[in-house]
Amino acid sequence: MPKTRLPPDLLEFLRAANPCVIASNRPDGQPVSVATWYLLEDDGRILVNMDRARRRLEYLRDDPRVTLTMLAKSDWYIHVSVQGTMVDIGDDENLAGIDRLSQHYTHRPYPTRDRGRVNGWVVVESWHGWRHGKAL
Amino acid sequence: MPKTRLPPDLLEFLRAANPCVIASNRPDGQPVSVATWYLLEDDGRILVNMDRARRRLEYLRDDPRVTLTMLAKSDWYIHVSVQGTMVDIGDDENLAGIDRLSQHYTHRPYPTRDRGRVNGWVVVESWHGWRHGKAL
Repeated sequence: MPKTRLPPDLLEFLRAANPCVIASNRPDGQPVSVATWYLLEDDGRILVNMDRARRRLEYLRDDPRVTLTMLAKSDWYIHVSVQGTMVDIGDDENLAGIDRLSQHYTHRPYPTRDRGRVNGWVVVESWHGWRHGKAL
Repeated sequence: MPKTRLPPDLLEFLRAANPCVIASNRPDGQPVSVATWYLLEDDGRILVNMDRARRRLEYLRDDPRVTLTMLAKSDWYIHVSVQGTMVDIGDDENLAGIDRLSQHYTHRPYPTRDRGRVNGWVVVESWHGWRHGKAL
């Protein structure tokens, strides 16, 4: 069930500083996943940020399709998955992106200042939500 | 860094009833993910279980490559990701598989008894672990 407009209760869920896992594909098509911070932007896109040295970044430039699953902080049996494409992958100048994420999750700037970071924004193409085994 | 033998501290981590997200590919290669229960078997394979009606199940029969990210229950900044292949996908007779998972996570049998379930076991081919941004 693809849905391009996200309903208000989903937006509210996504605005919280939830644990999240992002998955993308290696060039051979093997999915790989890792925990990540994310931040819902006002335009509905989702900011994520990576260390510039991550191999995943190369793979994402070749195949930008991703899926994210956000688990409610208080109860992981409430979870939302979004599928989409990562766009506008580019250097995080002055660490502004990772600082926004760090402020959102930890209320502090990002502590590591000596490594390059990269931003990407996920354009959501479909989503599914679950609450204790029942579709939202 | 592929590693086929899982070290003891990783096995200990995986034995806990951690929140987990599994991702696989749709036929067009779009990764899709969802929260899931999992159970580490004594032989190192990882049991997961799905409702028989899930479309994901069809896709997994065609492309059994998966990735799982487990978040430590107490602190999601400690997390482990495993990549591998799902094997022995088949009917969960008498709901024995989902009951083992349910007992592990909730200490009770699985409450929904009127829907068919399917087991699959993930053979781990590589893994990565992270603790507050540093590789384990």
